Amino acid sequence: MLIPPLPQGFRVAAVHAGLKKVTAREDVAIVMSDTPAVAAGVYTTNLICAAPVVFDRSRTPGSDFQAIVINSGNANACTGQRGMSDAQSMASLVAKHCGVSDRSVLVLSTGIIGEFLPMEKIALGIGMAANQLGAESESVLSVCRGMMTTDTRAKLYGEYIEIGSRRITIFGMSKGAAMIGPRMATMLGVILTDAVLSPEDAQQLLIEATDVSFNCVSVDGHMSTNDTVLLLANGQTGGKPLAGDDLKRFSKSLTATCESLAKQIAEDGEGATHSIRIDVSGCQTREDARKVARTIADSPLVKTAIAGADPNWGRIVSAAGYSGVAFAPERIQLRLNGTLLYSHAAPVGFDAEAVSQSISATRETHIEVDLGDGTATIRFWSSDLTAEYVRLNADYHT
Amino acid sequence: MLIPPLPQGFRVAAVHAGLKKVTAREDVAIVMSDTPAVAAGVYTTNLICAAPVVFDRSRTPGSDFQAIVINSGNANACTGQRGMSDAQSMASLVAKHCGVSDRSVLVLSTGIIGEFLPMEKIALGIGMAANQLGAESESVLSVCRGMMTTDTRAKLYGEYIEIGSRRITIFGMSKGAAMIGPRMATMLGVILTDAVLSPEDAQQLLIEATDVSFNCVSVDGHMSTNDTVLLLANGQTGGKPLAGDDLKRFSKSLTATCESLAKQIAEDGEGATHSIRIDVSGCQTREDARKVARTIADSPLVKTAIAGADPNWGRIVSAAGYSGVAFAPERIQLRLNGTLLYSHAAPVGFDAEAVSQSISATRETHIEVDLGDGTATIRFWSSDLTAEYVRLNADYHT
Repeated sequence: MLIPPLPQGFRVAAVHAGLKKVTAREDVAIVMSDTPAVAAGVYTTNLICAAPVVFDRSRTPGSDFQAIVINSGNANACTGQRGMSDAQSMASLVAKHCGVSDRSVLVLSTGIIGEFLPMEKIALGIGMAANQLGAESESVLSVCRGMMTTDTRAKLYGEYIEIGSRRITIFGMSKGAAMIGPRMATMLGVILTDAVLSPEDAQQLLIEATDVSFNCVSVDGHMSTNDTVLLLANGQTGGKPLAGDDLKRFSKSLTATCESLAKQIAEDGEGATHSIRIDVSGCQTREDARKVARTIADSPLVKTAIAGADPNWGRIVSAAGYSGVAFAPERIQLRLNGTLLYSHAAPVGFDAEAVSQSISATRETHIEVDLGDGTATIRFWSSDLTAEYVRLNADYHT
Repeated sequence: MLIPPLPQGFRVAAVHAGLKKVTAREDVAIVMSDTPAVAAGVYTTNLICAAPVVFDRSRTPGSDFQAIVINSGNANACTGQRGMSDAQSMASLVAKHCGVSDRSVLVLSTGIIGEFLPMEKIALGIGMAANQLGAESESVLSVCRGMMTTDTRAKLYGEYIEIGSRRITIFGMSKGAAMIGPRMATMLGVILTDAVLSPEDAQQLLIEATDVSFNCVSVDGHMSTNDTVLLLANGQTGGKPLAGDDLKRFSKSLTATCESLAKQIAEDGEGATHSIRIDVSGCQTREDARKVARTIADSPLVKTAIAGADPNWGRIVSAAGYSGVAFAPERIQLRLNGTLLYSHAAPVGFDAEAVSQSISATRETHIEVDLGDGTATIRFWSSDLTAEYVRLNADYHT
């Protein structure tokens, strides 16, 4: 696996503090910026949201941030007042060990809902991690593992853009494999850059990038209590804040980063044997397109059909039909892996065996739905539903 | 199994016409009223709806109906103009063989989407069934099997009410085990009665009964193209149309019939090992309560937790949190099989092992959610999600 480099002035570390039962699996991590950074965040819209979400939401967007502390194995969600004070303690511990201010630290948690954090273990973990901060690939991979719960692989992405003589780096990492049905927000994601950005631009660009990436992913349609994406921009490339075309180029890279991370989440959906790319077009608005795509993505009947390599198009068009979006049934067109399956409200003759084989032969299945009713489009990512997903979630005991 | 009796003046028959691959499994059925009956219907709200839905919707509510013809094994959905003319042909064939008018016949179809009906087989089946009409238990059970697709058991219910010297019978049957996520409508259901009802009352009472029964069931959240419930009232008990308190008593029985049939559908959810009863209370409106219940019912994480006998309450309250209903998170209370699990936004100490054992020990799991925000309530029925559901739907090839 190619590990993308951190932007200038960032260091990271993760350790095993004992929150996860598997020894040597990192569960406490720190992301540090050597200089104050602008921070932006997008968060779950679930009314039942975790303490770190409440904590970070009250602090972002803004300037003078230096660290993110992350724990996995425990979501610190539904933990009441004690959960809030534990999130504050995590920030204070990082401030103390790293020599930064309390106000400069953001907190991310993921794992089981409804248990109090084991603060002694976390305090030890933060102390150890603070002494191991580095920028090399091993540290980056270790931090990414430190965010993971049932994920089977690290989700990383990075790219450069050249603006004048400045080379700006964007780095992103995320986690998530189930309880993935974000709306307006997403699972845990951290984007780091050495670009100079104003807090307002950082927040606006992050919202826009999230809208077409993390908000276009669903593994099981269940919106988490902890969904958060943070962007830290420490400005180490210098100069004035990005503006105009430069800001647009940065925005494009930020969106590409979010899209890659979102797609990686769908690809690592619990128990998945296929990722499903759903392109919906011909809609009156992007929100209509998203509704149609999400309804298809969340249908267990569509997901099991893909798992079974079955071009069962009736399940796909009927899902579009109950999405709540008004359209003319006689104009809908459906393609699966490029083959036209349904058009003009009647079956189209096609080679079912060949389409089934194309599903079996590739990891990605491509569903294209055209409502023939406008110009708005969306690309949405999902995964299939297998007996392994059921096994994982029936056996994951509280 | 106790077979409820048909109301006066109804006869039924079903035969194997070859639409289903399994020999001797009935797939064409006729329900006949000896005298003209009032008919009411409620239908899927899916934009992609089947030909028989379009056909019946244009005819109900109304008077002078005498027959319903039903086929399973083929949904006659997404079949364009030919599908419409096939539905019309089914009605005409029944009219011819049973000596009733074309206009007096309604049509129900269920099964695979997107294939044309094998009309020769259906014509033979209708001819055979028309010669075998009867009112005994064997015929009733045979018709109920004739509606079934992946159902593992017949879904029947009946009751009497005494009004003056008249004994009114209500009989209901339904089918459905997957693609069950009705909204404003439901799966196939047929309710028969010998009460005297006006078409307007019949329609209104059926809408009300459906709203708290079939519309409160979800196996997999996927709304079918064919959902239909028909009510035939042939008035053989005589007298004036029911009104006032008598109509209210009939309405209560009709609702009990629909509730029983709806519950039987959830209990027979594909691959299910538990039925799940979800009582949501403390809401501002019944629609809010339904939204919360449906979101919990449709979460794969909740469904797999119940399959695994896991009192994973975080999954349940987080589903309520993204239902789209506004409520104060600190007021929500959750009980599972009678035990309080969550209250005042913080975990409640409880014996997890005991609750897990109570889930394992009973077929029905009872979830109670109180939002503490009003007086509206709903009772909703669902089923758990097992690897067997995945196997059934990944292997059910088109």
